[in-house]
Amino acid sequence: MTNSKPVLHTALSPALLHLYDLNQAIVVIIDVLRATSTIATALYNGAKCVIPVDSVAKCIELGRQIDGITAGERDGKIAEGLEYGNSPFEYPREFVGGKTLVLTTTNGTKLLHMALDRGAGQIVTGSFPNLDAVCQYLLSQNQPVVLGCAAWKDRVNIEDLLFAGAVVNRVKEHFHINCDSSQIAETLYLDAQKDLYAFMKSKNASHYHRLMSYGLEKDIRYCLTPDVANVLPLYENGKLIVL
Amino acid sequence: MTNSKPVLHTALSPALLHLYDLNQAIVVIIDVLRATSTIATALYNGAKCVIPVDSVAKCIELGRQIDGITAGERDGKIAEGLEYGNSPFEYPREFVGGKTLVLTTTNGTKLLHMALDRGAGQIVTGSFPNLDAVCQYLLSQNQPVVLGCAAWKDRVNIEDLLFAGAVVNRVKEHFHINCDSSQIAETLYLDAQKDLYAFMKSKNASHYHRLMSYGLEKDIRYCLTPDVANVLPLYENGKLIVL
Repeated sequence: MTNSKPVLHTALSPALLHLYDLNQAIVVIIDVLRATSTIATALYNGAKCVIPVDSVAKCIELGRQIDGITAGERDGKIAEGLEYGNSPFEYPREFVGGKTLVLTTTNGTKLLHMALDRGAGQIVTGSFPNLDAVCQYLLSQNQPVVLGCAAWKDRVNIEDLLFAGAVVNRVKEHFHINCDSSQIAETLYLDAQKDLYAFMKSKNASHYHRLMSYGLEKDIRYCLTPDVANVLPLYENGKLIVL
Repeated sequence: MTNSKPVLHTALSPALLHLYDLNQAIVVIIDVLRATSTIATALYNGAKCVIPVDSVAKCIELGRQIDGITAGERDGKIAEGLEYGNSPFEYPREFVGGKTLVLTTTNGTKLLHMALDRGAGQIVTGSFPNLDAVCQYLLSQNQPVVLGCAAWKDRVNIEDLLFAGAVVNRVKEHFHINCDSSQIAETLYLDAQKDLYAFMKSKNASHYHRLMSYGLEKDIRYCLTPDVANVLPLYENGKLIVL
């Protein structure tokens, strides 16, 4: 079978990432609630860069060295010893503009380092706030793509799957997709797209409940809104910068 | 939160099975195309038992010892050295009645042994041909449940997810379900239920294509038909027997 389109796969959990060849691929790190939404927002609001680190200790140490903002969560709450959390609303332009954010989160930043260790060709981050920027970039590159869902402690979640489905829905004509996970993602997205928030609520999504119990409805609604922080965070030399 | 209902989870791939506590649970092994459909059919047609083994060598050795039918596939084709394959149509009553089937398959029998190694409380097998028997059993037991999808070489597939969704849809009122994978499965099933075959085809399911390329449309259609071999295969002392 001849097919000159690049392949696209979706990895529904970090525990499935090893099934896909990342070497020549663009890996899109997806952690909708809330790491990658917050990364897009901070960069959109003028942060110089976001440095994702995989432990609280590294976050504190690096923050001190470079005089950056230390931020992150464990289990959905601000991690002990850090100054700020993982809410996009903590990073308005007047606060984050020109600054460096050092960020560690339960799932998203861990997946990013996993993709790095597995030799990903390029790493970008995706979320509804920068959906269009992600799709435009993937369409411009003509490279294989792996949509990597951060999930929750390796358990598949609805919101990351919905974002993967939104991407599949927008770029599928330009990729060769022989991947049931991608089809599942798009099917779910098509069911949900009219009102993503109502869908999350009606499906009793576990992360929806976790964040609602912390009073974070506003965060959820924002993180499900397309194209409100439409930049492409690209990982280069240890930093996420705006392409 | 008090909740006296037992929990239900869905593991979308063998590579995610370790995330769930199997000790007190009934694990439903799901390999719709075609291992668990064939197991239900052989037992429905009067086979004495089905012995699932995890290698072709063991299959041949055991088949010789007990004068059983050696059967199985690797990559969808009859494995070298075995007499029969993994099609339910190979096991009509007049052939399989009273006999023992020794079966090895790419994904389903491997998952069963993995669940066994992880200390599963009980193991049963599920497929559309025995959907109702599975649901009735789960409802009768009042135990935690893990729906274990065999997938394809650890990659999530549509058909096993559809079956998990069919089960969730029928039993959900009687379980506590805080599991996005189960919600995703049911959502997909609700989209597909009117015509599972058409859904598989329209979604370009990878296994649909694999089996169609071997001329196995009839197998696919049968394996997506509910309740045509409505027995409950229960694993006991190394054998799947009818409860």
